[in-house]
Amino acid sequence: MSRWEPNTRERLLDAALDLFGERGYDSVTVAEIAERAGLTKRTFFRHFSDKREVLFAGQEILSRLFAEGIANAPASATPIEAVAAALLAATTAMGPQRRERARQVRAVVAGHTDLRERELLKLATLRAAMADALRARGVPAPTASLAAEIGGLAFSAGFARWVAPEADRPFAELVREALDELMAATATLG
Amino acid sequence: MSRWEPNTRERLLDAALDLFGERGYDSVTVAEIAERAGLTKRTFFRHFSDKREVLFAGQEILSRLFAEGIANAPASATPIEAVAAALLAATTAMGPQRRERARQVRAVVAGHTDLRERELLKLATLRAAMADALRARGVPAPTASLAAEIGGLAFSAGFARWVAPEADRPFAELVREALDELMAATATLG
Repeated sequence: MSRWEPNTRERLLDAALDLFGERGYDSVTVAEIAERAGLTKRTFFRHFSDKREVLFAGQEILSRLFAEGIANAPASATPIEAVAAALLAATTAMGPQRRERARQVRAVVAGHTDLRERELLKLATLRAAMADALRARGVPAPTASLAAEIGGLAFSAGFARWVAPEADRPFAELVREALDELMAATATLG
Repeated sequence: MSRWEPNTRERLLDAALDLFGERGYDSVTVAEIAERAGLTKRTFFRHFSDKREVLFAGQEILSRLFAEGIANAPASATPIEAVAAALLAATTAMGPQRRERARQVRAVVAGHTDLRERELLKLATLRAAMADALRARGVPAPTASLAAEIGGLAFSAGFARWVAPEADRPFAELVREALDELMAATATLG
């Protein structure tokens, strides 16, 4: 069925976030999400392993964008320039139409310890993807780890500013700003 | 009962690690751990919420040692000197008699995805404890986050070297070395 339905994932995500907002994450079932989207439970499970994974749908895409951004950075790029390229590559997943949805996801995650833990683990995966891609460019291990941690911090800070209420500056600008602040901070570690 | 039994936690930990080593983590029950330690299940649950938590028993102590190490660093200490003080404070939990036990814990954790995830979350807690303690000293947010991430990387790298087979240099030396490597790496980020 899904092969004939464009935007199936998007429809499931919209339906899930609408229902979570209306009734709270805990009480919503997969069957209800599928029904709201006009799809079957079976179709839901072709796209997501469970209700929780709907909230983290974008993270595999981000890992890939980060890794590709680093791999495709010019050979002359420094480690942090490669990380900056990765963060900018991720902006394709952070368009203006995604911001409201990201805010809804964040509100659900903030209220649940297990979801916040899941988010921390996904962030660790994103950092690992960056560190691996940097080592593949020949960046030595401690520098690769450090640059990936800074990339992770910049991503988290930029994302938090992007989804803040009233925020309207684009993700690319906010994440670049966060990265610049962190690089300036490296000079103040002592 | 536990108030009359010195080293109850240690006995439970020894019993658990022995049993995990003999029969594998998955098949060992809390009742068996308690029995091997010559204690009751009730005593076990006064010390640990479940079998898994035995493996992460030291991490709350570490969070406290890290936070105290940073709080007690001289007022003149730079952020990274305060982090170095935190890592050295943690060495009280990393004596030579603990190394073999740490190796056993690591072997169990390495073989189980859910335990590795638990470890990542505990590391995130340790980093957060350091960042909080740094901000409490007046260190600005981006520097505090960055110094805490570097402290977390140094801790992980130092710990991995400490529990490596054949390793015999003390933790304090290995973690200091890892921290120095990371600080040197800050100059190579570009």
